[in-house]
Formats: sequence, structure tokens, C-alpha cells
Amino acid sequence: MARINEHYSKLPAGYLFPEIGRRVRSFTAAHPDAKVIRLGIGDVTEPLAPSIIAAMHAAVDEMGKRETFKGYGPEQGYDFLVEAIREHDFKSRGVDIAADEIFVSDGSKCDSGNIQEIFALAAKVAVTDPVYPVYVDSNVMAGRTGTVDNDGRYEGLVYLVGNEANGFQPEPPSGGAKVDVAYLCSPNNPTGTVATRAQLERWVAWARETDAILLFDAAYESYISDPSLPHSIYEIPGAKDCALELRSFSKRAGFTGVRCAFMVVPKSVTGVDPTGKRTSLNALWARRHTTKFNGASYVVQRAAAAAYSPAGLAETNAQIAFYMENARLLREGLGAAGFTIFGGVHAPYLWLRTANGASSWDFFDRLLGEAQIVGTPGAGFGPAGEGYFRLSAFNSRANIEEAISRIRRVFG
Amino acid sequence: MARINEHYSKLPAGYLFPEIGRRVRSFTAAHPDAKVIRLGIGDVTEPLAPSIIAAMHAAVDEMGKRETFKGYGPEQGYDFLVEAIREHDFKSRGVDIAADEIFVSDGSKCDSGNIQEIFALAAKVAVTDPVYPVYVDSNVMAGRTGTVDNDGRYEGLVYLVGNEANGFQPEPPSGGAKVDVAYLCSPNNPTGTVATRAQLERWVAWARETDAILLFDAAYESYISDPSLPHSIYEIPGAKDCALELRSFSKRAGFTGVRCAFMVVPKSVTGVDPTGKRTSLNALWARRHTTKFNGASYVVQRAAAAAYSPAGLAETNAQIAFYMENARLLREGLGAAGFTIFGGVHAPYLWLRTANGASSWDFFDRLLGEAQIVGTPGAGFGPAGEGYFRLSAFNSRANIEEAISRIRRVFG
Repeated sequence: MARINEHYSKLPAGYLFPEIGRRVRSFTAAHPDAKVIRLGIGDVTEPLAPSIIAAMHAAVDEMGKRETFKGYGPEQGYDFLVEAIREHDFKSRGVDIAADEIFVSDGSKCDSGNIQEIFALAAKVAVTDPVYPVYVDSNVMAGRTGTVDNDGRYEGLVYLVGNEANGFQPEPPSGGAKVDVAYLCSPNNPTGTVATRAQLERWVAWARETDAILLFDAAYESYISDPSLPHSIYEIPGAKDCALELRSFSKRAGFTGVRCAFMVVPKSVTGVDPTGKRTSLNALWARRHTTKFNGASYVVQRAAAAAYSPAGLAETNAQIAFYMENARLLREGLGAAGFTIFGGVHAPYLWLRTANGASSWDFFDRLLGEAQIVGTPGAGFGPAGEGYFRLSAFNSRANIEEAISRIRRVFG
Repeated sequence: MARINEHYSKLPAGYLFPEIGRRVRSFTAAHPDAKVIRLGIGDVTEPLAPSIIAAMHAAVDEMGKRETFKGYGPEQGYDFLVEAIREHDFKSRGVDIAADEIFVSDGSKCDSGNIQEIFALAAKVAVTDPVYPVYVDSNVMAGRTGTVDNDGRYEGLVYLVGNEANGFQPEPPSGGAKVDVAYLCSPNNPTGTVATRAQLERWVAWARETDAILLFDAAYESYISDPSLPHSIYEIPGAKDCALELRSFSKRAGFTGVRCAFMVVPKSVTGVDPTGKRTSLNALWARRHTTKFNGASYVVQRAAAAAYSPAGLAETNAQIAFYMENARLLREGLGAAGFTIFGGVHAPYLWLRTANGASSWDFFDRLLGEAQIVGTPGAGFGPAGEGYFRLSAFNSRANIEEAISRIRRVFG
């Protein structure tokens, strides 16, 4: 009698994006002529940059010739990519990360889902609310929580509420339960808000004081427009003793269909085993990574490295500027329509208060029905997201302008 | 105080392939002129087939144009690939697998490491010995075992010994501990032996009788040369009620550096939760796959689909025939040198008894020192591998012939 993981049954049956898909399909079936504009899932729309395309073609040609064919690569990633990451993402910002502290992977969803494996099942986990669902679900599946309560919160998790009062950037845990590990995403998915240097300093101070680990998800760092804001947690002194950082090429270079990301695990970050012995998380993650992963695709790693070339940087920065101009237009248009808006300045997401205090799913239905626009209900990201709504700036300029015009017609 | 996963410390500090790398580096440092032939790690050497290269170029071009750009794809894989798999791998052998029972991934190492997550921590796991190390290590890391004993066996795991008497194809568990889940790899890594239809029928009968799950790893099925041997476990009646199957493009189409694989999880395979309720493993794996994975790279999926085109099949089958001719030459040459050999007929691996009863690491050192050939010590695959040695047939014909000539000079 094969015994299954009993924790999966704690997860709700209906997930966020499938439920959105179901409602959109139902609407389009009833209204086959409706031109639906999708600002829901945060997926890029611009094609890959020319220098990335050229690098991929060159890499494909290498794979077709015996002399240059590549089989298994190093599980942590090829030197050419690791060195580009060290130089452009860290050294350029005054941060020194060793090559063996960088782990190239096929995506941040994998990394953020898998990282919990190196912590004890008894480890106390803190998440923000609203939150990227993978942080929560992967810990539920591992058995680190009890069941979900009527408010949608799992027993055993520590929730740090983001709200208008704190600008959707909750402070670190204080008092109460001792937290082992905290997930922090900035620029934030879903709220599009960003942590200031002072806020990040408080997170690092908290982690160092309480000997906790900060899992810092910086998948959207390239959307930061204010030069005074840190892009990496390691720009905060002391972070190399307490923080891991997740980075992705998905939104940086349009790689949602290409698949490449990386995680930084400094050797100086440690945890303790039940005997009190300190172990480097780098050693644990290296063991996990090399045991269960065989390296990212060679062609994909060449594509990622090309994003750091002078031409690649110029081209991908222009794409980011294009999306951020979309975000600016959305902010302006929604503001003119009377909405209260957060985010969208240092991130490609806008977080808005629903009209007339509607529930976020009711607002979803109204926006779809009256304006044929798909967004994401805030409640899908946690109980504190109720009454809010996420719109993505990833789309063509024409669709963004049409969406603004429809929203102003319906709400403004 | 961040508590870490205490089970990682049960794993031995030195892993197999890094230790091989260390010894080879040490040898080549002392003998810089030695021409070392690597038959250790099972990595392909032939370049990607022309039709696969053409498909990758076309897919890269699609990614460079707005109209054909692909962002996030379906997590389970694109229809064009899933349908090719259904048709060529299953329907052609009389097996009907539904599209939503196929999960495309970035590699079988990931799949075989991750699949244990959907079973209870209390689930009793059986492995063969010798064994592909990922099956064991991923269960150790999850906490399903105790510590390792002096023989290199983990407390709590059930070991099914492969030896010369059973042709390295152990029978299913019998008597003793009730097994929930058993891993079976055929054609086998590392021994290169293959299970007959009658043997697979006994495995399926065992799984059905005891309500256990069979995890069938068929990564090397395309190397089977005898048309009467099953390629898929689903060719055995009843297997769709008790077996999952892992497949890979790594050895099928030379994708070790490209990264694509898939797993079959029939909806009729079920397990039980602590309340006795039956749940489909398909639903559990779908939840795991969509929560922690974002789909394989689009370009990679197009490459995999091209391996099923008429030209792709002809080209990749020719590569497999080339490697298998290498295997035949190795078998012949090693036989002439007096070695007792197993495998190498339906798999690209030869498994040989070491000369004069040497330990497998001593034989490794002698083969490297006297013939400048790198292989893999059998002991690295489990205690029952001691006294045996794995050689891979993946290399150029010239290197294979040179290796045979050296082996005959030293041993024959």
C-alpha cells in the first residue's frame, strides 16, 4: 500500500492561475468577438534581443559539430556565465561573490521552491502577506505547516502583513515565535513596491541578531529606476553572513520561455544541525544542486551570457524601459480613473485598491466583463491581498493604451 | 538560529564523480603528456543530429520575432512534443497514454530526484544494488533513512542485490518489510543489463499484489536491440495501475547538454493517505510539477520534437547504432583480454569483473595508471558493485579502438 505525502491535501484544490484561466475561457466562450487584453500573469511580450538571438544561433551551431559539441556541463553553470554574473551583477555594485557561491539553474520558480529542502522540517518559516505563492506552497508540501484556517493562513507559518500603512513592505518579525527562515521579495511580486536601503538594513540586522536566514528574491531588480536603491541584498553590510539571493533572467532579459536563473549562496551563511554544529548552507545547497540537477541547457547559458554583453545590456535595458513606460502610462491612466495605486515605479506590477471596496474576485469579474481586461485578484496572493488587484505592464504599447482607455471609460 | 536539514550529514563526504575527477587530475598533473581516454561518466560525444540543429535554429528565430515569441509555456510541455511522445514512444508499441499523463521536464536526474516528494516520509523504499545513486541520495536527503552502515547501506532502505547469479537483474522484494515504492532501471545503469519481459511481468505482478508503486527508469530504452524486449513498462498488462515511467532525450538524442526528459504518471496509479483515502499520483505530481517548475525551454522542446521526425529518427538511430558498435567492439576486446563482461548488448554500458579480484578503486587506479583509461568503480554504485567496473561506449571509434588496444596490452 503506497503511502503518499499527506501534506498535499492541505493545499486548496483551485489554484490561482488555473481559476483565472477557467473564468477567461468561460467569458470568451460566451463573447467570442471580445478582444481580451491580458494583464494577468506576469509574462514578457517583447521578443528576445538581437544579440541574444545571435548567441543562441552560434551555440546551436557549436552543438552540431563534433569539435565544439557540449555534453553534460558543470552543474553550477559554465564559467563564462558565472564570471559575467559576478562582474555585472555584483562587482559593478561593489559586491564580491565567489564563483562557487553562484548556482545557475533553469528558473527562479525551481530555486524558490527547492531551497526549503536544505532547512529542517522543524524550521519556522516567515512569509509576507501578500506573497508569491511558491514560497508558501513548497513549505506546505514539505510538511512544515498545519492546515489552512478560514482566513487562508497555514498553521505554523509566520505571516508578515503588507498593507497601505507600511507601503506593502512589512518589517522583519519581532517578538513571538522564533523564525529560522524568512522569504523577502523586492521589488515585490505581487505589489510592485520596493524595499528601501533602510528597510533592507533592518532585515539584515534582524537576521544577524536572531541568527536567522533571509531568502532574498531579487527577480525584478533590473526594474529599479532610482539609483540610490540597492539591487542586491549584499549591498547591505553583513548580508553575506545571513542572506541567500535569487536572481532570474526571466524579466531581466525576457527569458520566461528560455529558462535561466541563478541563486547566490555565500559560504559564510550557516545554519545549525540538532547537535548544534554549524554547517555552511553553500555546502548543503551544492549537495542538493549536484544531486538533483544536471545543469542548465548550454544554449540557454550562452543566451544568458549574451544579455551581459554591451549590446545585450543596451537591448535588454531598452526592453525594460519600454515595459516601465507602460507601467508609467498605466499608473497615470488608473490614477485619472480614480484608483489608488501602489508599485509600478521600480517593478513591472501595479497594485491597486479595487473600486468601491469590491472583493478582488468581484473586481476581476467586473474588469473582465466590462472592460475585457484580465488581471490578477490580490486575494490569490494571500488574505492581505483581499481588496487589491495586480496589473502587469508586460504588453504592447497599443494594448496598454487600449486597456487604459477602457478602464477610464468603465471606472473613470 | 536557522535549523538545517540534518539528513544531509548522513551522506558520505566524497561523491563518486568528484573523487574520479580528483584522481584523474592528480594523474594528469604527474603525467602531462598522457593521452587519457575517458570512458567513465556516461556522456555522449556525437554532435546533435542535423534535423535537431535545424529545428533549434528555427525555434531561436521564432523567439526573435514578436509574432512568434514564446513566453511561459505549459508546465507539462507543449502539445507538439507531448503528441510526438504519445505517438512514437507509446502508440507505436500498442500503449495508450493520455496527454495529461505526460510531464515534460529538463532532465531525468531532476525527475528521479524529485519524484520521492509525493510519497509519505514513512514510505518504505526499495532500490537495487548496484544502483543509480540519485535514487538513494534523494531519499536520504528527504529523511526516509537512518545512517549508513559499514557496508555502505542506509538503515531503512530495502536493497535488492544484483549479482552474477541473477544476471544483475534482481527479483522484486519478497517477504520481510512491506515496500511502498521500488526503483527499477532497465536497461540498467550501471550494469548495462536489461530486464526480460518475464522479469518485468514479475515486477508488475509484485506491485499489483502488494499495492506498491514501481518507478521504472527507461532512460536507455532506445539502446535495446532485441525486438522482443519491452521498451516501456506499459507494454506489460496491468502496469498502468502501478507504475510510473521515466524517459530521457539525453542518451536517445544526445541531449546531455540540451536538457529534456519526461515522466509518465498514469491517472490510474494511486496511493493512500493516512486516512486510507486513495489519491491519484497524477494529481499529486501535477501539483508538484506546476508549483515548482515552469516548463522546459521552448527551443529545447522543439529540439526534442525534431528527434521524432522521420529524419530525426534516422539520424539519432544511426548515432545509437554507432555507440552500440563501440559497445560490441569493447565487449569483444575485453573478452579477448580475458575479462568477464555483463551488459553492453542493450545498453551503452559494460559491466566487468575486475582483474584478479581487485577492488574496484584499485582497478580504477591500475587502469588509469597503466592504460590511461578512466572508468567508473562499481563500488561507487553501492556495496554490491564492489569488484566490478563500468565502462561507457560513448566515445569516438578511434578512442574506443585505442582503449581496447591498451587494455589488451596491459591485461591480455
